[in-house]
Amino acid sequence: MGNELLLVLVIGATLISIGYAIILLTKIRKAKVNHPKIKEISSYIKEGTFAFLKKEYTIILFFIIGIAILLTALGFIPALKNAEGIGYKAAICFLVGAGFSGLTGFLGMLSGIKSNGLTAEAADTGGMGKSLKAAFTGGAVVGLSVVGFGLLGLSGLFYLFYKISGSLQVAAQVVVGYGLGASLVALFARVGGGIYTKAADVGADLVGKVESGIPEDDPRNPAVIADNVGDNVGDIAGMGSDLTESYAGSIISAISIGVAGIVIGGELFTDLAAIFPLLIAGIGVLAAVISVIIIRLKEWKNPQRTLRIATYIAALIVLAGSLVLSLVFLKSVNPFFAVAAGIIVGIFIGQIAEFYTSDTSKSVKEIAHQSQTGHATNIIAGFGIGMKSTALTIIVLMLGVALAFIFNGMYGIGLAAVGMLSTVGITVSVDAYGPIADNAGGIAEMAHLDPHVREVTNKLDSVGNTTAAIGKGFCIGSATLTSLALFVAYAHAADLEILVNGELTTVINIINPLTIIGLLLGAMLPYLFSSLTINSVGKAANKMIEEVRRQFSDDPGIMLGTSKPDYAKCVDISTSAALREMILPGLIAVLSPIAIGFLFGAEALGGLLVGSLASASMLAVFMANAGGAWDNAKKLIESGLYGGKNSEAHKAAVTGDTVGDPFKDTAGPAMDILIKLMSIISLIIAPVLIEVTPLFLSLFQ
Amino acid sequence: MGNELLLVLVIGATLISIGYAIILLTKIRKAKVNHPKIKEISSYIKEGTFAFLKKEYTIILFFIIGIAILLTALGFIPALKNAEGIGYKAAICFLVGAGFSGLTGFLGMLSGIKSNGLTAEAADTGGMGKSLKAAFTGGAVVGLSVVGFGLLGLSGLFYLFYKISGSLQVAAQVVVGYGLGASLVALFARVGGGIYTKAADVGADLVGKVESGIPEDDPRNPAVIADNVGDNVGDIAGMGSDLTESYAGSIISAISIGVAGIVIGGELFTDLAAIFPLLIAGIGVLAAVISVIIIRLKEWKNPQRTLRIATYIAALIVLAGSLVLSLVFLKSVNPFFAVAAGIIVGIFIGQIAEFYTSDTSKSVKEIAHQSQTGHATNIIAGFGIGMKSTALTIIVLMLGVALAFIFNGMYGIGLAAVGMLSTVGITVSVDAYGPIADNAGGIAEMAHLDPHVREVTNKLDSVGNTTAAIGKGFCIGSATLTSLALFVAYAHAADLEILVNGELTTVINIINPLTIIGLLLGAMLPYLFSSLTINSVGKAANKMIEEVRRQFSDDPGIMLGTSKPDYAKCVDISTSAALREMILPGLIAVLSPIAIGFLFGAEALGGLLVGSLASASMLAVFMANAGGAWDNAKKLIESGLYGGKNSEAHKAAVTGDTVGDPFKDTAGPAMDILIKLMSIISLIIAPVLIEVTPLFLSLFQ
Repeated sequence: MGNELLLVLVIGATLISIGYAIILLTKIRKAKVNHPKIKEISSYIKEGTFAFLKKEYTIILFFIIGIAILLTALGFIPALKNAEGIGYKAAICFLVGAGFSGLTGFLGMLSGIKSNGLTAEAADTGGMGKSLKAAFTGGAVVGLSVVGFGLLGLSGLFYLFYKISGSLQVAAQVVVGYGLGASLVALFARVGGGIYTKAADVGADLVGKVESGIPEDDPRNPAVIADNVGDNVGDIAGMGSDLTESYAGSIISAISIGVAGIVIGGELFTDLAAIFPLLIAGIGVLAAVISVIIIRLKEWKNPQRTLRIATYIAALIVLAGSLVLSLVFLKSVNPFFAVAAGIIVGIFIGQIAEFYTSDTSKSVKEIAHQSQTGHATNIIAGFGIGMKSTALTIIVLMLGVALAFIFNGMYGIGLAAVGMLSTVGITVSVDAYGPIADNAGGIAEMAHLDPHVREVTNKLDSVGNTTAAIGKGFCIGSATLTSLALFVAYAHAADLEILVNGELTTVINIINPLTIIGLLLGAMLPYLFSSLTINSVGKAANKMIEEVRRQFSDDPGIMLGTSKPDYAKCVDISTSAALREMILPGLIAVLSPIAIGFLFGAEALGGLLVGSLASASMLAVFMANAGGAWDNAKKLIESGLYGGKNSEAHKAAVTGDTVGDPFKDTAGPAMDILIKLMSIISLIIAPVLIEVTPLFLSLFQ
Repeated sequence: MGNELLLVLVIGATLISIGYAIILLTKIRKAKVNHPKIKEISSYIKEGTFAFLKKEYTIILFFIIGIAILLTALGFIPALKNAEGIGYKAAICFLVGAGFSGLTGFLGMLSGIKSNGLTAEAADTGGMGKSLKAAFTGGAVVGLSVVGFGLLGLSGLFYLFYKISGSLQVAAQVVVGYGLGASLVALFARVGGGIYTKAADVGADLVGKVESGIPEDDPRNPAVIADNVGDNVGDIAGMGSDLTESYAGSIISAISIGVAGIVIGGELFTDLAAIFPLLIAGIGVLAAVISVIIIRLKEWKNPQRTLRIATYIAALIVLAGSLVLSLVFLKSVNPFFAVAAGIIVGIFIGQIAEFYTSDTSKSVKEIAHQSQTGHATNIIAGFGIGMKSTALTIIVLMLGVALAFIFNGMYGIGLAAVGMLSTVGITVSVDAYGPIADNAGGIAEMAHLDPHVREVTNKLDSVGNTTAAIGKGFCIGSATLTSLALFVAYAHAADLEILVNGELTTVINIINPLTIIGLLLGAMLPYLFSSLTINSVGKAANKMIEEVRRQFSDDPGIMLGTSKPDYAKCVDISTSAALREMILPGLIAVLSPIAIGFLFGAEALGGLLVGSLASASMLAVFMANAGGAWDNAKKLIESGLYGGKNSEAHKAAVTGDTVGDPFKDTAGPAMDILIKLMSIISLIIAPVLIEVTPLFLSLFQ
């Protein structure tokens, strides 16, 4: 088959996914919510969410336009005319990437907000089966949009610029801009969303649960709507754009490595090696569609089992499909091994996260046990467990990398990343289900629905906590693998090739102090970045606490239930804090690689990338699992262990949970973005770095 | 001058230092303590300390003998007969290194324990001047022993094997064993001591201060003696052996790089480049002696100023001396720049630690402020500040590396490390002063001395907290720099030299998946290591808490002050916990580089080293500064801020302090040891790795 036909087929697959997502979204939007209270609360959440999105997108727009102009302008510099990642073509890709990523987030929000209410009402009127279906369908729209739009933009642009230039090499360079666009939106969505959601959550919890003794999601708490909005913007939009970025990044890196030419079984592949990652992704898109259709065929009763089956169906389809594609197009089983390694590692990493954070795990029980001796021992225990969990995670990831490499060299690392992310359509669907179920529970509480409703939503939500832990593991694992692949692509693009024993080899030498300096600075950045985001949450939560206290003391009617709290004020606090605080981390992520690259050169920038990759992935795993374990330890005690709610052990466990909140939902996930964004930017400036002398070295010449 | 004469001069300098240390120690041991209660308490502490040391040294002895036999036996393998770091000669160096390191620890203990009591009594009878002098003299014995014995062993063995073999190259390889010996003892002293001290401290605090409401250092608390013993074994012996290891490691690495030949100003130096680091160290030893003599000439009233002057005197002497040595022997000012960069970076890093942790700092005030909203916000604030503090620390360190490299290439990095550590004699003296002052205060409390005594000791102690923060920064900075230099030496030793563009270059290529795998595993190890040590503290502290509670409930007379608690039982718990728990981290540190080296090869091992170096130094800085800041935030509140003692803010601040304890005194300092030990082991096995095919690769061939 010709290259173009293959690309058209991939585009066709994405259109199927998008079409199905739109059908489902239309169904959701047409469905009627009858309960007046649910309607009212949903409207508050909707209002708050779109107020945030509007402000956020406005800020992003400025950045986007600025960078697009910069990319276009730089293209006019004569020395850069061969750097296809820069110039008006790359700027177009960049705009499409940002636009599609933003669109996906918007559609996800539309689906999520409406599905919250539908899930709550279905739990009331239809029981577990209907409620589960509503939540799953809401999540599926997010998942199918992510892969549909994500791959449509990428494959469409790749096709377009291949048509125009007649060269896959040129097309491969140009579409890096698409990855940058997706990355930039992801940065703001993840960091802004992460700060938003935790400022609201921590603020609501500390005054509500701890000081005033009212339950979670109590409508008397002024911060409760902000908390629910936060679940949407942080957990749905943030997570979705994070994985969109990984998705695009993994495919882009595999294409970049592939176009350089891959030898498999003595035969040199260039065209097919470049297109193969897109084919795998195309199979993945179809797999997600098929999996969602199958699950929606009947009403399931067991949420855990349902979500697991959905994941396995998709994984099996991709495995089978990639085996066929591998044998047919690359005439060897080896590429299949790399894709399979990626898929399996992705599943394992999720399982490891569950192993350390599920409420039946030894680790979580240990934290609960240590809560009896107070706040400090609870914190120390969670800290230790989060750190320990890095070991198994990294070992599994490294085994995957080793296997992928053994059979396919560097190309294998790119393929493993693509493989892992090929199932992302269903992963996001399952992941987005979590916050929908969580919010449905919140709405049920706020609308004073019958206790049996809360029972259903609680069951849905507790599975959501597990899927969230698995999803977080998956986000980190895929971000690490994607960044690794992008890093390799960067080294190729930066022309770091030297004659080693007579053979041209890509080399970034660590026994070069500039590389070491880059590496150590890179290892430091995730710490700086985390401290900024964690402090932002702390500051914003403090403001939230003061506002809630003020409302309680100004209007005693709120606590009595006779007057309505001012939800909008709390939404405002979270919104402006999130938007203000995401700027500085964003600038650091964007400017660090540029500064190091031009100051110390391409090799030092390589050091920076690998240093930050190593440091950020450890911190991300540590924070996600410590946070998850603290959360479930608290839940375990709330279920009656060691004195249950309001015991001393419970108070200590709440401390751990509160500390874990910004860890697992703000700083941790932001690590994923940091390393991917820095890698993408490096890949783009790589051809420029070849042309200039590093400033630091020119000082001493 | 001939090489031998130069070495003899260095040996002479060490003998002066040792002689002076012995004179001071004799004075201390002869001095009489008159207060019967001080005598009694001192005897408990002494008993506990030596019980621990005896058991610890017995365990270490087994390891030492085992490794010495292994080193000797491996030397008989024909393929390894040119690997001088292995064989009976290296085994001898290893034994001397371990022995001297142990001896230094023992002498430090002798001095520390007696000085505790002397300082307390001097505060009673002589006031600030006499008390400060007693504490400083006690610390000086530790500092002078560290540099005296540390350098005597190294230069003596270097001289011996140079005499025997006639080759500086051979001598340079053989003495790596000396570094291994020092490292191994440091591992046990730091990890074991760190677990000991914090198990006792956390246990004593949680039951004593929090549950029973009795003050710190109250003699009714059964864990109080264990706590005091811990200060000696952790803060004096542990810190001393940590810096002894850095000291030996930095000199060894500089020699290793130097013997390969250094071109300065067009001239090739080999002999002098190898001996030069020893000369700098020799100047440093003399500088420490001179500084101690000057300080002891008169009675000082202001402890802060005194300690600062001591440090500056030593630094200035080394700066002047190294300028002269640089010009005379290496005929250029360039090596001086590297040494100076090391010294200045060392001072700056200490200042940065103080900047983030002193009780007047913005950071500490912020933590105190956040304590008002509870335990969680206190923890989050400390966490953020610890992470932020990595930025400035690493940037300063990297600037130093860049400058040292620019003027002297790789040799400069070794010299910078030697420069930084050349002032270690006085750094250790100042650092050891801290726990002595702290314990003097404890003794004053326990012996119910007059409040004015406690006033003096409190003043001494508060300065001790600052010097501890500075000292910790110095330990980390020097460990990072030393490991970096050892890493470079390793790459040379592992023959990782390839023809790059026709020139022989040492290369560890990160664009090699095996290197990346090594690097990511390396980045993970510090997390695993920290989780083990932190969990050990948690477990041991729990046992301690149970024991203290048991004693309180079994014998109500303890709280009434009518019966004496069973101190020995608590000492036992800490002792056996520390010794049991240090084995596993120890094995991980020793076996990881060996496993990765033989499994994935020398390049992957290089990746492991640099990955762990990057990861561990960030964690170490983060933990040390977070811990220090939490500690002082608590003190700030205790001084009356936000409600003072027993307020809600205070309780939250105590949580932060308790969490910070294992951070700053167990896991954090253990990071230093981990990276140095792994580097030294790698340097030793490097020549072996050249001879074998990595297991993993041979599987697929």
